[in-house]
Amino acid sequence: MIPGIQKELADRFDIHFSNPALLDEAFTQASYVNEHPREDLKFYERIEFLGDAVLQLTVSEYIYKRYPEMPQGKLTRLRAAMVQEASFAKFALECHFDQYIRLGKGEEKEGARHRASLLCDIFESFVGALYLDKGKDAVVAFITTVIFPKLDAGWFDHAIDYKTALQEWLQRDGDVLIDYELAHEDGPENDRSFTMTVAADGTIVGQGTGKSKKSAEQAAALKALNELRGQQETLITHGKD
Amino acid sequence: MIPGIQKELADRFDIHFSNPALLDEAFTQASYVNEHPREDLKFYERIEFLGDAVLQLTVSEYIYKRYPEMPQGKLTRLRAAMVQEASFAKFALECHFDQYIRLGKGEEKEGARHRASLLCDIFESFVGALYLDKGKDAVVAFITTVIFPKLDAGWFDHAIDYKTALQEWLQRDGDVLIDYELAHEDGPENDRSFTMTVAADGTIVGQGTGKSKKSAEQAAALKALNELRGQQETLITHGKD
Repeated sequence: MIPGIQKELADRFDIHFSNPALLDEAFTQASYVNEHPREDLKFYERIEFLGDAVLQLTVSEYIYKRYPEMPQGKLTRLRAAMVQEASFAKFALECHFDQYIRLGKGEEKEGARHRASLLCDIFESFVGALYLDKGKDAVVAFITTVIFPKLDAGWFDHAIDYKTALQEWLQRDGDVLIDYELAHEDGPENDRSFTMTVAADGTIVGQGTGKSKKSAEQAAALKALNELRGQQETLITHGKD
Repeated sequence: MIPGIQKELADRFDIHFSNPALLDEAFTQASYVNEHPREDLKFYERIEFLGDAVLQLTVSEYIYKRYPEMPQGKLTRLRAAMVQEASFAKFALECHFDQYIRLGKGEEKEGARHRASLLCDIFESFVGALYLDKGKDAVVAFITTVIFPKLDAGWFDHAIDYKTALQEWLQRDGDVLIDYELAHEDGPENDRSFTMTVAADGTIVGQGTGKSKKSAEQAAALKALNELRGQQETLITHGKD
């Protein structure tokens, strides 16, 4: 048994494995198995194969339902940003999964424990193990804590552009009228710059400048997102005091 | 409502949609929506985005459980063969889905209805609709009829090589000892050919010839697969009489 992992999962996520052998498998790399031939161990690769598909579906279903008007192209880009190696590696670190990986000595020396590709694999294999042990609802509960809040925090805005991100953010709880307007144009004909404002239900929430109206709109949307999310964080912090 | 589709699904698959609007969405291409602007129609792309992920997971879970010893690399190759466009297009035709697609006139003229990429999309969007309407178990039941029997029929053998395919086939119901042996070598030194036999629990089930021992083993495995599957089909046919 890998020491500490069950306590960490219980304390942080209220997850209690019925079959902890699945956890051992999910956190064990082939290099460790090779160094312990007598222990009849399994390494994570098969379970990661399954976990990868579980994450694809649960993330797809979530964004499909959450953004009922988002066209397929944007859904696909957003999913790609969410399920990529760099994202999963960050989630694995956040969950302290790096502390529990069983590696061979050579791999350990070469710093594999901190490699994004391994962290990503382990995040997927953990989800595979959770799916096998507790089913899809437990996976949804886990990634509702670990992945989905990052959507609101703006981690994946770049994948769908800031105007779309602002629209999705403002319309979480219902329709909001969003309006972009040209505030002013400046500079000579061959080096013009544009300043656009964005308003939500008639209140200006952001302003941005760019070399085209399009890029000025993107800048205004990003400004509004940062502003509005900042306010929300203040509200949350205040509410906690 | 698309005429006939509900009857086809009920008669062939015992599937009865609670929300047939999902079916309309799944079988309607954007070109048709554009030609009927007043009908407030939806086209299949969003639902296909979801169906794609549903198929990935259900196929992954099935082969993960069915082949408990298959390493990740082979699982990945097998899944890729099963979920590829050409496979899904064939399944769509088998289900007669081509008859129910709603297309714009231009697309119809250009033969889109028989295009593999569209048939594949429609197979995925149908599965997405089924998942939304009836849940994962209904999807598993559907693809247990449509996709999984193709594994036993050898459609995807090439993805995992014939030796592996034979092993998986023979060991479906428990351990079988499989043994390859060199029967004879022929020809001059610079143009040698090898003949290998393959035995299951001591009985020779196939023989093959090749320019290397490896290719001779593959040929023997393929021969055995065709032979054994042929026998099984005869048994099944006989059993039905």
